[in-house]
Amino acid sequence: MTTPSRIEHDAFGPVEIPSDRYWGAQTQRALGLFEVGEERFPVVLLRAFGLQKFAAARANVQCGALAPELASAIEQAAIELREGKWDGHFPLTIWQTGSGTQTNMNANEVIANRANELLGQPLGTKAPVHPNDHVNRSQSSNDSFPTVMHVAAAIEVSERLRPALDELRAALAERSQAFADVLKVARTHLMDAVPMTMGQTFGTFAQQLANALARLDDALPRLLILPQGGTAAGTGLNAPKGFDAYFCATLAEATGLSFVPNAHKFEGMAGHDALVELSGALNTIATSLLKIANDIRLLASGPRCGLGELLIPDDGLTSSIMPGKRNPTIAEVVAQACFQVIGNHQTITVANASGNFELNVAKPVLVYNLLQSMRVLADSARVFARRCIRGIDVNREQLATNVERSLLAVTALNPTLGYDRVAQITAKALRERITPRAAAIALGFLDGDEYDRLVDFAALAAGDASKR
Amino acid sequence: MTTPSRIEHDAFGPVEIPSDRYWGAQTQRALGLFEVGEERFPVVLLRAFGLQKFAAARANVQCGALAPELASAIEQAAIELREGKWDGHFPLTIWQTGSGTQTNMNANEVIANRANELLGQPLGTKAPVHPNDHVNRSQSSNDSFPTVMHVAAAIEVSERLRPALDELRAALAERSQAFADVLKVARTHLMDAVPMTMGQTFGTFAQQLANALARLDDALPRLLILPQGGTAAGTGLNAPKGFDAYFCATLAEATGLSFVPNAHKFEGMAGHDALVELSGALNTIATSLLKIANDIRLLASGPRCGLGELLIPDDGLTSSIMPGKRNPTIAEVVAQACFQVIGNHQTITVANASGNFELNVAKPVLVYNLLQSMRVLADSARVFARRCIRGIDVNREQLATNVERSLLAVTALNPTLGYDRVAQITAKALRERITPRAAAIALGFLDGDEYDRLVDFAALAAGDASKR
Amino acid sequence: MTTPSRIEHDAFGPVEIPSDRYWGAQTQRALGLFEVGEERFPVVLLRAFGLQKFAAARANVQCGALAPELASAIEQAAIELREGKWDGHFPLTIWQTGSGTQTNMNANEVIANRANELLGQPLGTKAPVHPNDHVNRSQSSNDSFPTVMHVAAAIEVSERLRPALDELRAALAERSQAFADVLKVARTHLMDAVPMTMGQTFGTFAQQLANALARLDDALPRLLILPQGGTAAGTGLNAPKGFDAYFCATLAEATGLSFVPNAHKFEGMAGHDALVELSGALNTIATSLLKIANDIRLLASGPRCGLGELLIPDDGLTSSIMPGKRNPTIAEVVAQACFQVIGNHQTITVANASGNFELNVAKPVLVYNLLQSMRVLADSARVFARRCIRGIDVNREQLATNVERSLLAVTALNPTLGYDRVAQITAKALRERITPRAAAIALGFLDGDEYDRLVDFAALAAGDASKR
Amino acid sequence: MTTPSRIEHDAFGPVEIPSDRYWGAQTQRALGLFEVGEERFPVVLLRAFGLQKFAAARANVQCGALAPELASAIEQAAIELREGKWDGHFPLTIWQTGSGTQTNMNANEVIANRANELLGQPLGTKAPVHPNDHVNRSQSSNDSFPTVMHVAAAIEVSERLRPALDELRAALAERSQAFADVLKVARTHLMDAVPMTMGQTFGTFAQQLANALARLDDALPRLLILPQGGTAAGTGLNAPKGFDAYFCATLAEATGLSFVPNAHKFEGMAGHDALVELSGALNTIATSLLKIANDIRLLASGPRCGLGELLIPDDGLTSSIMPGKRNPTIAEVVAQACFQVIGNHQTITVANASGNFELNVAKPVLVYNLLQSMRVLADSARVFARRCIRGIDVNREQLATNVERSLLAVTALNPTLGYDRVAQITAKALRERITPRAAAIALGFLDGDEYDRLVDFAALAAGDASKR
Repeated sequence: MTTPSRIEHDAFGPVEIPSDRYWGAQTQRALGLFEVGEERFPVVLLRAFGLQKFAAARANVQCGALAPELASAIEQAAIELREGKWDGHFPLTIWQTGSGTQTNMNANEVIANRANELLGQPLGTKAPVHPNDHVNRSQSSNDSFPTVMHVAAAIEVSERLRPALDELRAALAERSQAFADVLKVARTHLMDAVPMTMGQTFGTFAQQLANALARLDDALPRLLILPQGGTAAGTGLNAPKGFDAYFCATLAEATGLSFVPNAHKFEGMAGHDALVELSGALNTIATSLLKIANDIRLLASGPRCGLGELLIPDDGLTSSIMPGKRNPTIAEVVAQACFQVIGNHQTITVANASGNFELNVAKPVLVYNLLQSMRVLADSARVFARRCIRGIDVNREQLATNVERSLLAVTALNPTLGYDRVAQITAKALRERITPRAAAIALGFLDGDEYDRLVDFAALAAGDASKR
Repeated sequence: MTTPSRIEHDAFGPVEIPSDRYWGAQTQRALGLFEVGEERFPVVLLRAFGLQKFAAARANVQCGALAPELASAIEQAAIELREGKWDGHFPLTIWQTGSGTQTNMNANEVIANRANELLGQPLGTKAPVHPNDHVNRSQSSNDSFPTVMHVAAAIEVSERLRPALDELRAALAERSQAFADVLKVARTHLMDAVPMTMGQTFGTFAQQLANALARLDDALPRLLILPQGGTAAGTGLNAPKGFDAYFCATLAEATGLSFVPNAHKFEGMAGHDALVELSGALNTIATSLLKIANDIRLLASGPRCGLGELLIPDDGLTSSIMPGKRNPTIAEVVAQACFQVIGNHQTITVANASGNFELNVAKPVLVYNLLQSMRVLADSARVFARRCIRGIDVNREQLATNVERSLLAVTALNPTLGYDRVAQITAKALRERITPRAAAIALGFLDGDEYDRLVDFAALAAGDASKR
Repeated sequence: MTTPSRIEHDAFGPVEIPSDRYWGAQTQRALGLFEVGEERFPVVLLRAFGLQKFAAARANVQCGALAPELASAIEQAAIELREGKWDGHFPLTIWQTGSGTQTNMNANEVIANRANELLGQPLGTKAPVHPNDHVNRSQSSNDSFPTVMHVAAAIEVSERLRPALDELRAALAERSQAFADVLKVARTHLMDAVPMTMGQTFGTFAQQLANALARLDDALPRLLILPQGGTAAGTGLNAPKGFDAYFCATLAEATGLSFVPNAHKFEGMAGHDALVELSGALNTIATSLLKIANDIRLLASGPRCGLGELLIPDDGLTSSIMPGKRNPTIAEVVAQACFQVIGNHQTITVANASGNFELNVAKPVLVYNLLQSMRVLADSARVFARRCIRGIDVNREQLATNVERSLLAVTALNPTLGYDRVAQITAKALRERITPRAAAIALGFLDGDEYDRLVDFAALAAGDASKR
Repeated sequence: MTTPSRIEHDAFGPVEIPSDRYWGAQTQRALGLFEVGEERFPVVLLRAFGLQKFAAARANVQCGALAPELASAIEQAAIELREGKWDGHFPLTIWQTGSGTQTNMNANEVIANRANELLGQPLGTKAPVHPNDHVNRSQSSNDSFPTVMHVAAAIEVSERLRPALDELRAALAERSQAFADVLKVARTHLMDAVPMTMGQTFGTFAQQLANALARLDDALPRLLILPQGGTAAGTGLNAPKGFDAYFCATLAEATGLSFVPNAHKFEGMAGHDALVELSGALNTIATSLLKIANDIRLLASGPRCGLGELLIPDDGLTSSIMPGKRNPTIAEVVAQACFQVIGNHQTITVANASGNFELNVAKPVLVYNLLQSMRVLADSARVFARRCIRGIDVNREQLATNVERSLLAVTALNPTLGYDRVAQITAKALRERITPRAAAIALGFLDGDEYDRLVDFAALAAGDASKR
């Protein structure tokens, strides 16, 4: 039993294609050529191609470069692509020409076939709608693919990553409020330091997330600058005057994102500095999230032989050999997502560093890694907020014991006794296994009342200098 | 319309599972918890789990720790898993607990359900074969998952990557022979240097691949050392004496790879230094391949305004706007695969660097990146050999012109004239746009016959010092 | 012969120190302990400590926390440190405690000794000015060292890196103007594409540099936020009310940079996200510079067997064996500096990712790499501008030949003939080694006049759509 | 006051040089050109140049290519260079041409001047010994610099890094023995797991170091393969027959390292795969050391609110604000050194990935990072062994308390009770804050005697399955 097929032609001759597939000859040729890996573009990129072809058709009409009746069919097909109807007709992996040409041609071919179908023609006719002459009108892969890279990335920042990070920020801020009065011992160099509150711990995390959002907001403007209109190599050859502005206006209206034409179109396709910049922001955010996930894992370590200051919610999973053992599974997912983002940043960096002349030819691998970074960072942040942070509680007993036993609140005595005498107190307390209060009194530096007035844990943690 | 379902129980209570799925309660719980990303383990890892559960059941019988009739059913189910029959019953992404526990439990559950089915019981009974007590007998995720990581990696090295790199090496060596007599100008600092042959160019590439194979061979022995038998945390708790040796013997027989027990089982699960080491080899190989792909792209640049010394075979693909333009598509795939490998190496490095205590908990992301690196490196190397290298030809006309025009063959005159006088020749030739031969004669340093005897291009390229 | 020495005491006892050195006991102890490497902090960091101690003393007086006569001596000593007078009294390498405590104590000790000297006391008295009680008053290493990291980085961005990149931008822009009318063939996938100008090539580079400046400007605000006032672990213990604001005001006045207190002081010492962010900007800029350096090297390759379109100025250096050979030495320095920045970014990323609790303890290695990245990027950019870019010229003959021989200007015929017929033209021209003009006429698609009107090189390169 | 100077000439004309400096015209020109950064080659590289020039002179004599009286003076000067006498006469930073040509010429010039001096001539005569014609005889920077890179790296591996890592391994192994009977609770996912011994913890670390040594040993053979004899671009032009073998024999004798000629000399200069490979080994070792340093820091955390199971020796350093606070300073140095190695590996990777044609031109930055990685890894490992590991003790009281309180030794009951019933025990113990022993008895699963027999901590930790 064989799959029924049809014949399509491109500039090089005939190609056999499965009858029910909407792609065309160039896609089919690529399919036979690039037998590498399994990685596919995420659907957000394919659907961004729907947006791009739609906006291009509309701009062509506005410039008088495309017959309205053809444009109308192209626009309809492009809307369907954007809505996910043709996701299954993009058979190629990301391992293709570095310009993304095969996926651009795939989009051209699917839309041409679908548009012709809408216009009453069978698949494969390339008429009245031709994939290059009409769907790709006033365009090149050189400008279309990087435009789609930017559009997909901007959508992911706005619709997926930013909301997820903001949700995590809010969850951390809420816990910061809830733990505002919970005293704990600060740790520097992993060693016991002065008193603080658990609210400050979570407030620090929340602030890191607030900064993460600001970093994304700084990277966004350069992401909204599009090279569409540059056509071959950035020259703008065959693109009518005003095409770029019409294109961006339509795209901005369709997405709510303020896309603008790149005034230096060569810049937007020869390199992808703006995407390395965005990846740099993701990399920074990954280091923040990793720190937060690790701190939470360590503070929740135990239940009996660890720090044990935090209690993370039960997730119903356990060890395959140690029955009933509970592990910080979500925090480990977050950490692993961060490792991925840090490595992807390296891929993106070397991919961009390796460009030559008018066209960076590492576009597919670059955008694949960028979109993956955003996806796993967003998803893991959201699950972290929902399944871990919101349900975190403190172990008040353990925290109180720790605060009581700690030595270095005596630092508050520095202004009164001087650094060298305070050092004598801690040395004595540590050596004799007594409280620093007892050591201070035994050394005759001050009496119990003076000590309690000067070393007031709650005031210390509140950072209320006026009480000291 | 709802999917029919059954109820399974784990230590925490009942869970609803689609009737036709073989996974159990812990897998189903994880499915609802970890809503992150789309990345799946490649099937090589799932199938390595089939091998691992098979060898464990067999070792348990050999140690008297498992009833033969249960073991027999488990072995049958494990063989089916190895053969790919149950690939569709692993619904989790890689974004799970850092020990890989959920995928180990998934394997335990699928095999238990299938074994019980073979023994005449419906799915979900957990009897007579229990996923933890029997399938996971003498095991923990702590030792089983890293064992599977090593097994999958060793299989990929042996069966996929090594053959592909060797095929590329052979193709390059063959071209080296074919071009043994083709003179060209060497380029250092991208600038014209002394004469050499195109055979030497391809011979250098072939030697890099030969070294790549040696690097893989050096990394393999530590990959064959398995922590199985360490159970919880490396302690070996509940694993009978000799289990590890029996396990490795069965595995070695099944795969043809000389697996041996790790004498320090803690080492094999607390960290994955051996996998970072392997990734380091892949990273080195990626830098080699990148250099080769770039050199070939540059030497084939043109067709009329580039270096134009090589002709790469036509692949039937072209630009979406510049009709008939041919691009070095395969070499670009190779380069992009290398960027991925370089970035994955970073992910793997930080994943391993971040372990704590008795268990590295970045196992899923680590092995995912490692297997992806091997897959894309192998596939792109093979396509490179088959679709590009083997069909490469030289542009003899362009090469001959270049050799004739070049200046620095005069370096051969150093021993005769001394460095400073040869410098005068090249300066004069460059300034006056003449050949160095003409310049040498004009400067009165030697006559034409002497020059031709001392500066013999073919002898120079052959490195035949005796003729000079 | 022995070096004369004096005895100093710290909280742990007496230490012998060379008589003519101004450091004290903690520095001397560290010197004997950390026998690692040779890397020193650049003087910009030591001098930023002068600024920091100056501003702290002043703020202490403003808060009534330090006697004016002691403050006055401390300020004088700090000014001298800032001016470079005490550079030679910082003997430690960067390989010290992760908080930078030893270098902070080194600064405290040098300033205390110098202040006491100014007040008529010999070195080593610790009175009337005590290194901890007075110089370090209202401070901790926890807040002082990261403050100094930010101050040094902000100064380097403002005074070294930004001006250097702007100088490079200006040089590239000037060459863009100079080459505005020089036609060349664009290259995509390294292959000949459509016509453009050399002015556009350099204009693209200039635009990348303009974006680089914008990236630095975006990173700067978060760099100006200082944790000073957080003292131990961020709690603010022992820092008087208002200290942070007074401190920043003095620092802002002294530097012209708008430093402000971090409202969440814990955030400023637990992690260094803002410095990873800055390093991310440097990493992006490194990929831009690498692209530019590589393009220039390739376009200048030859002199006779390369692309040969650019002529870079002679630098007086040559090969040790090939007399008179000229190489693009400066561009290679730029490329190597970029490799360093890309790797340093990784060091900085993992250093920040690895923090725990209230204090990141990778501060020395982090700031060392950050300052090195800025230094080598700035220096190499400036040398690139002055010794290479400004003197670059075009090889008009080579460029004209290339433009004439190129095929793909026929892309301009797409709107007239359609993609498939243009593909026939290029195929015929390539196969028969004729011009595309001849091929188009031979195929009967149009006559010579039509061709010349539609394929107008200068118009194409000018991107002047109206003429087409 | 001006520095007295002399005039030297190179192929381009006269240059003014300070009278007391032994370098020549090409070095002086480079000094004025490359005003970038402060990074210098470590002396091991300069001294390796001494070895290289010595072995080259000797080989030239053996081939009859150099007059013995000139060779003799060159050899004497080269020996002095190797011994460190001329370290101060290499004024260039690493930021020079990517072939390292300027430092090779610097070595040629210093040796030529010194050799002429030995032969009774003033500096600057270039006669009878000429820097290019005699010192650089049968050589190019193309082969000499990479040869020196390999020689310096091999010396550092053998004489610095390997001994230091072995010292650390021995110190860890000794502690493993000392703590062989000290029970502790294993931690997986940072959570309490089953019992083990502190001896096993340190034994795992020691095993990682043993593996590290094996990794270095695997990388060494390809490091001993030298491209010397390849001269310009690998062609061997102007090198007499047998030169390479003579050269390696002399070098092997002088160093005790089995250097051999690269049979494919092009391979040894076009890329530096062998150095990326070595850096990959260092990167792997860095992840091992980072894990060890972090585990020790965490196990020693406290003194009262941390895990507190280890006691690290006092180093006499403390906080600038918290008097008497002790921190794990040495472990932090180790961690920071590892971050540097990980980042340097990235620099080295991209530097090698970016080569073109016959010569990688990122040699200086590549070898600088490689030598730095080895230096800081070696030094920090040695200080770690001497100042930290050897003095580590256990806190027996804390360890015993933890073991007693832990839950998961009950895993030993799995074979007897089955996984699901053991899960009930741990759940009850955790919920009711009782020991698992009490929970097991209360649930009626077994009595106290049975429990004590089956859950024998010491036997569990000893991994002695026969007792269970």
